[in-house]
Amino acid sequence: MDPDSVSKAFVEHYYSTFDSNRAGLANLYQDGSMLTFEGQKILGSTNIVAKLTGLPFHQCQHQISTVDCQPSGPAGGMVVFVSGNLQLAGEQHVLKFSQMFHLMPTPQGSFYVLNDIFRLNYA
Amino acid sequence: MDPDSVSKAFVEHYYSTFDSNRAGLANLYQDGSMLTFEGQKILGSTNIVAKLTGLPFHQCQHQISTVDCQPSGPAGGMVVFVSGNLQLAGEQHVLKFSQMFHLMPTPQGSFYVLNDIFRLNYA
Repeated sequence: MDPDSVSKAFVEHYYSTFDSNRAGLANLYQDGSMLTFEGQKILGSTNIVAKLTGLPFHQCQHQISTVDCQPSGPAGGMVVFVSGNLQLAGEQHVLKFSQMFHLMPTPQGSFYVLNDIFRLNYA
Repeated sequence: MDPDSVSKAFVEHYYSTFDSNRAGLANLYQDGSMLTFEGQKILGSTNIVAKLTGLPFHQCQHQISTVDCQPSGPAGGMVVFVSGNLQLAGEQHVLKFSQMFHLMPTPQGSFYVLNDIFRLNYA
């Protein structure tokens, strides 16, 4: 499979899981994974999912605008860069965001998130 | 040196070079480097610098808003995520952008850009 198809499938899976069952994201991170969320660094799958499930909104919907992907080196990883809109339940206006993922292959032939950096784009 | 200091120094060097001597960016890329610029993929230092020096504006100034950095794996690389404003000469309004770099160490103890993804953030 080509990197663009893999990254697009990953991104769709990631945000549909985020929007329907945030705790299910645990499977996409590992102990060495890091999330930087609006400048706050969080290490490890357990802490990352605790952060994401503890965000102060219950329902949300991500709308993806762009997905860019490149192979990230000889280890078979990929960097993925996403821009889009985040709609929170009960809010009139969408929030714009940018997010990057560094995906690494697993022995089972899928990918996990080694690096994840999220920023809202303030107007 | 800690990754945050290295990435901040890199980002300042990158954009000051971009704004003063775009051709000088050639030293920061290698043959295996890739730039994705607004969805267009460009491979290799020579092609990347040709793209950047050929952009349809001569003078510009980057203003950095945020820099986030994480170590990217056992090879000693770093992922760096930047948001900021781009002011083009003669334009009244700034353009907002997000950009990610995947930096890899060189034998000389510095870093080069393996992956570079740039997107304007449209309002």
